Amino acid sequence: MAETEVLEVYLDLLSQPCRAVHIFLSHNKIPHKLRIVALRKGEHKTPEFTKLNPMQQVPVMVDKGFVLTESDAILKYLATNYNVPEYWYPRDPERRARVDEYTVWHHTNIRPPAAKVFLIELLRPHMLGQLVDLLMLEKALGQLSETLDKLESMFLKRQAFLCGDDITLADLLAVCEIMQRHSEGAPRVKLALKGDLDDAHWVVYHLRDKSASKL
Amino acid sequence: MAETEVLEVYLDLLSQPCRAVHIFLSHNKIPHKLRIVALRKGEHKTPEFTKLNPMQQVPVMVDKGFVLTESDAILKYLATNYNVPEYWYPRDPERRARVDEYTVWHHTNIRPPAAKVFLIELLRPHMLGQLVDLLMLEKALGQLSETLDKLESMFLKRQAFLCGDDITLADLLAVCEIMQRHSEGAPRVKLALKGDLDDAHWVVYHLRDKSASKL
Repeated sequence: MAETEVLEVYLDLLSQPCRAVHIFLSHNKIPHKLRIVALRKGEHKTPEFTKLNPMQQVPVMVDKGFVLTESDAILKYLATNYNVPEYWYPRDPERRARVDEYTVWHHTNIRPPAAKVFLIELLRPHMLGQLVDLLMLEKALGQLSETLDKLESMFLKRQAFLCGDDITLADLLAVCEIMQRHSEGAPRVKLALKGDLDDAHWVVYHLRDKSASKL
Repeated sequence: MAETEVLEVYLDLLSQPCRAVHIFLSHNKIPHKLRIVALRKGEHKTPEFTKLNPMQQVPVMVDKGFVLTESDAILKYLATNYNVPEYWYPRDPERRARVDEYTVWHHTNIRPPAAKVFLIELLRPHMLGQLVDLLMLEKALGQLSETLDKLESMFLKRQAFLCGDDITLADLLAVCEIMQRHSEGAPRVKLALKGDLDDAHWVVYHLRDKSASKL
């Protein structure tokens, strides 16, 4: 029984939303048990994992028997139920609404092209030994750049972080998609997260270095 | 000044997320001023509307000068800040997390194929006079049906509504996507919303009837 009392998270650091959850937990020193689900080995498709999440996706959180999927919902649940600074997910109705507005926009606008770029440029070449499809990459990069322009004009405008003067869950979700290509991007977010951002991205950096050495 | 004190919503009833916001406001008798933005006339692309929402999308809410986009964020803001039954967006952390889990899943899984079917089957033929592309329609219907199976197995399981025994924002978002084809679908949600569901769908029913009369 004692074991189930510890917060458990199932994740793979190759997945952007997983890294966001991982950074949130580490940065806020929330005690938890990490359960790695290696996507490249198909561990998200085992009968055992499918029972936990029929969608066969990571991350999954289990908190005292409560099973929750979707990074967005997990981050909001953790920010509400664990002792973390309020700025992550402000209680003020307007500031909270800004975070909710960004997160849904993020999942439908930033995530699809960013995930596509990562797949074409790093995952397929390294996991499946495929050559980088330069035409597809160019197209995906074009879509991503267009969306990042929108992010800039709609959300960043003249403020320090996506939803105001403080870091929120919105910045965390965004930076994990953007870091894959631009580790120098979002310097304010990097500074706010200290070493935790780089720590969660070691596997991405490793893949990127391997790619660069092949050029 | 008096005018800006009234809650304003900009929407087009041909848009699914707009209908969800509209039903929520009517059903909960929240006083508001409706501002119709006719998508078919390109009214979402005027300089005036673009200033309000640079993404050129509906719905948009303006509450005492606070401008908010994204149906998901608008519904959660309204449920939190207006006097409505708590079941729409429960304060209990686990029940709220269930709604957050569904809504993000909805926007990335249900909405894309449902919107595609609507576009191919009704919007393009009626607005642009195009013939229904039967091959594309079949493909989109296949994707939608696969996603609806997941919705059934993951969320509905053995419960009355998507997130438990009561109607929530999740059911409202879902039903507005599904009603387009299956007005008999989700009878429990229909019952809970009384006439408000049909009222918001008159323009969709009208398009559907026009299509049927052409067969």
